[in-house]
Amino acid sequence: MLSNYTALMHRPPTKHCRNCGSAVVYRIPDDGDTKQRAVCPACHTVHYENPLNVVGTIPVLGERVLLCKRNIEPRLGKWTLPAGFMELQETVAQGAARETLEEAGAQFEMGDFFSLVNIAHVGQVHMFFRARLLSDQFDPGYETLEARLFTEDDIPWNEIAFRTVSETLKRYFADRRTGHFSIHVFDIT
Amino acid sequence: MLSNYTALMHRPPTKHCRNCGSAVVYRIPDDGDTKQRAVCPACHTVHYENPLNVVGTIPVLGERVLLCKRNIEPRLGKWTLPAGFMELQETVAQGAARETLEEAGAQFEMGDFFSLVNIAHVGQVHMFFRARLLSDQFDPGYETLEARLFTEDDIPWNEIAFRTVSETLKRYFADRRTGHFSIHVFDIT
Repeated sequence: MLSNYTALMHRPPTKHCRNCGSAVVYRIPDDGDTKQRAVCPACHTVHYENPLNVVGTIPVLGERVLLCKRNIEPRLGKWTLPAGFMELQETVAQGAARETLEEAGAQFEMGDFFSLVNIAHVGQVHMFFRARLLSDQFDPGYETLEARLFTEDDIPWNEIAFRTVSETLKRYFADRRTGHFSIHVFDIT
Repeated sequence: MLSNYTALMHRPPTKHCRNCGSAVVYRIPDDGDTKQRAVCPACHTVHYENPLNVVGTIPVLGERVLLCKRNIEPRLGKWTLPAGFMELQETVAQGAARETLEEAGAQFEMGDFFSLVNIAHVGQVHMFFRARLLSDQFDPGYETLEARLFTEDDIPWNEIAFRTVSETLKRYFADRRTGHFSIHVFDIT
């Protein structure tokens, strides 16, 4: 689910304690921590904010890769790989598979881990797996205007929604030319 | 920083809105979401809870691996690789390096990504990098009772604090015997 992407990229600061509702103060907690946190002066709850994982797949049928045209902001109308925020109680691969089902309604087999992309300035880590499509029929969810297969030559590079996606696709095609897929860990700044 | 490990593993449910302090209700939001979230009936803030990343290193000097004896609960007195919760504004590798400095006071060069371990039932993803120690002198922080180098034969397997660590170490030594390090993605259930 990428619908809350913008909200989470610009997550507003915690103003009230999630335990008791009191107004928080920002300070370094007393437990040896070194960073400012939202601390509750009433019940002493410390509110941590940590990076979020976005998980998805590179779904492939023969020579073609599946992209989804976004039906939601941000980047409405742009193309993306199926991906979204990892949820509690799932593995990275389970989250990637869930998103592929939700956004593309694709039938597929999960493949190997492919890329881990840090976007430190928005507090996100994006992770993609390869996936083998079992059909060229899709049933996209409400977040997707259209799910379509593209050959490398047809990829709409100027219409890709996110750099995590275009940089992952570039590495995928480069690996495919060599006949050997490796795992790519890189940063987007 | 692993001091809040227990707190986060058993993170209490959100009771109040972090924006306005009103009592939240648990329901499926109206935006197409499919999961129950803590929703504020007053200001409509939706509170997401997502998995946390724990990042660390396998610091190696020649044949020996650095382990840290924990000075904090949980698993006080047990041995671990230096690791802790990833923070905002850092990459996975930067977080792993920071934890190695904080917990062991080690001098080292970061190496390649080594393992990604899902622990879905506690909502965590643990990631380890290899690291090359530049010295056998350490300056452990307050979370560490002792930082010590172990050969494979001396690893206190029954005194390792976390399965993510013992399973990562096993794979590290297995790879080292083959002379080829790969990336390991696996689950702990």
